[in-house]
Amino acid sequence: MTSLLYPLLDPLPDPAEAPAAPSHWLLTPGPLTTTATVKRAMLHDWGSWDGDFRALTASIRHRLRDIAGVGEDYTVVPMQGSGTFAVESALTTLVPPDGGVLIPVNGAYGQRMVEICRRAGVRHAVLEIEETSALDPQAVAQRLADDPTLSHVALVQVETSTGILNPVDEVAQVTAAAGRRLIVDAMSAFGALWIDPAKAPYEALVFSTNKCLEGVPGMGFVLTRVSALEEARARGPGRSLSLDLVDQWAYMERTGQFRYTPATHVLAAFRQALDEFDAEGGRTARYARYRRNYDVLIAGMAWAGIKPLLPEALRSPIIVTFLAPVHPAYSFTAFYDAMKRRGFIIYPGKMTRVESFRLGCIGAIDVPVMEECTRACVAALKEIGVEVQD
Amino acid sequence: MTSLLYPLLDPLPDPAEAPAAPSHWLLTPGPLTTTATVKRAMLHDWGSWDGDFRALTASIRHRLRDIAGVGEDYTVVPMQGSGTFAVESALTTLVPPDGGVLIPVNGAYGQRMVEICRRAGVRHAVLEIEETSALDPQAVAQRLADDPTLSHVALVQVETSTGILNPVDEVAQVTAAAGRRLIVDAMSAFGALWIDPAKAPYEALVFSTNKCLEGVPGMGFVLTRVSALEEARARGPGRSLSLDLVDQWAYMERTGQFRYTPATHVLAAFRQALDEFDAEGGRTARYARYRRNYDVLIAGMAWAGIKPLLPEALRSPIIVTFLAPVHPAYSFTAFYDAMKRRGFIIYPGKMTRVESFRLGCIGAIDVPVMEECTRACVAALKEIGVEVQD
Repeated sequence: MTSLLYPLLDPLPDPAEAPAAPSHWLLTPGPLTTTATVKRAMLHDWGSWDGDFRALTASIRHRLRDIAGVGEDYTVVPMQGSGTFAVESALTTLVPPDGGVLIPVNGAYGQRMVEICRRAGVRHAVLEIEETSALDPQAVAQRLADDPTLSHVALVQVETSTGILNPVDEVAQVTAAAGRRLIVDAMSAFGALWIDPAKAPYEALVFSTNKCLEGVPGMGFVLTRVSALEEARARGPGRSLSLDLVDQWAYMERTGQFRYTPATHVLAAFRQALDEFDAEGGRTARYARYRRNYDVLIAGMAWAGIKPLLPEALRSPIIVTFLAPVHPAYSFTAFYDAMKRRGFIIYPGKMTRVESFRLGCIGAIDVPVMEECTRACVAALKEIGVEVQD
Repeated sequence: MTSLLYPLLDPLPDPAEAPAAPSHWLLTPGPLTTTATVKRAMLHDWGSWDGDFRALTASIRHRLRDIAGVGEDYTVVPMQGSGTFAVESALTTLVPPDGGVLIPVNGAYGQRMVEICRRAGVRHAVLEIEETSALDPQAVAQRLADDPTLSHVALVQVETSTGILNPVDEVAQVTAAAGRRLIVDAMSAFGALWIDPAKAPYEALVFSTNKCLEGVPGMGFVLTRVSALEEARARGPGRSLSLDLVDQWAYMERTGQFRYTPATHVLAAFRQALDEFDAEGGRTARYARYRRNYDVLIAGMAWAGIKPLLPEALRSPIIVTFLAPVHPAYSFTAFYDAMKRRGFIIYPGKMTRVESFRLGCIGAIDVPVMEECTRACVAALKEIGVEVQD
């Protein structure tokens, strides 16, 4: 190779060159902190037509099916964009025009599914629940009994807007008992909170690269029954070419390629993230680590007198909403900046009636980070003039 | 910081750790070869809500407007997904229900715009042209005169399927003269082939991170008149929540954030790519390098007796379709593999009637790479048993 400008091999990283900005721990629900090795998997340019990249795509699809614990009657279809693009793709492709979808809503992500259906003209009914209340599976059963035209239920597993854990197993059971089909927005939980298909039958799960599987953002996935895609294919093409899940699936099955350029580097990082997921011990070990993170976080914050919004039974070890201290000196912006100076990026609350903030338990973080985080919270609050216990 | 598992700072790259796979030069129309420094900009995790990331997004939007050479009457709206997602977003948002769009088609990307409109119910008319023929701007003028309900023209600047360069300036002039508006799919050319807005008035340009601006794939952009978005807003929400360009724009203007998680690492790499674009000397220097790449490629291949599909006047220094050698030993797959062994990923042809292959001139490649590429082509063809001149 005679190029004077560029070496043939991807250059080895230069240790003398520091990263552009100092890093912070992302205590956010995704994008989140990823390992250095996941990020380093992006130091290579892939040809999206090439056989090596097709093999990478195929291996990701198979491994995700294995993580879900389902068989060959399911398939995984990657979709470019954020998780919301994948959710829209699933709802608009899988719910037939002569059916309809019941959407229980206790937060922003349930509400977003309603908005997707409203815009796209997908028949839907809404089951409104208080944002801080448990969803009652019997209310789902009742609505399905009342309206036989509802063919599907679409449920958010963990509502990131509060961190509430919805009763997926029970909703899956009443949905199956009523002969309907369940679509789960499993975005923020897939890989950590397992939905056992034997106990909780589902039609489709939707998730993305950048949550509990600890990749970088840029791609979503719809794991669905092959039969559901075949039924959708028989109904004819969808209104959106880009978000047509059947087209994406059929083209990928035929060619091993994406219809349109995928985020190649994001997918390479995701394969590395799946390797690290396996090396850690799969979903059991991943859940256990998040659970430790959560326990340390709750205990450390309680010690400082800062309490979670939700009762314990409704919380998940994914993200926790904390009630902000009631103190005239408190402002979220000041607290955010003080935490950032200590190396932590936190997340604002989404509650309209109470002042709150959110801290994530997921990503490439472990107990020492969470311990440091709780100490940083105390120090940051003191710095901005809020009295806390310590 | 007491974490035992993860350092506070992004770890410095480890020089002892070689990349996972040996690299190849991507002579493809994107994803393409990017510099090591562009890829290394992905070694940091950004919080998408954080002020630093909002500043990064804002700077990218402003710089893209500067590269286009337009003023504050235009705005840039990023859109998650591949370039096609951004094209769909532009067509479905900007063409009003009481209008319609004329689409000249001389390749796969024009055809894709037709398919987007057909699916989404956007009124459209098609001007079919031979794949290897120049588009006649007068034919556009005639169709616009014949049908006063056509409010827009949508044109692909460089049809990657053949590499043909369409006469954007002339089409822009006849479109403006007829009082209609032009949407340009500038995907494969933006940053290298400039469309002067003073000579070629347009309503919108659509492009992506991973072509002549030499970023990695995962985000698209719609550069459009602010007034066009305001008109679309007055018409009410679009059918797709994810692809609603007005919502994406309005939310970003109000908050500085994306509505839904963007590909943060892809955008960080893109900012670095824009820094390198400026350092090289902007669009003039970028065009000049691609032109040198193209000249070397054409000359080297001619020397081996391999000719381009298109006459010179229709070619662009972006991607070139070559006629495959007419020889019983030739197969694209064998040629592809032999080129890959020599460190080059090439691209199949898209012609249905003649055997062809494509070689790109864009990406972080320069004359020595193109020289080596032409030598590799000769050696690869010999290896598979095809006689060539050398």
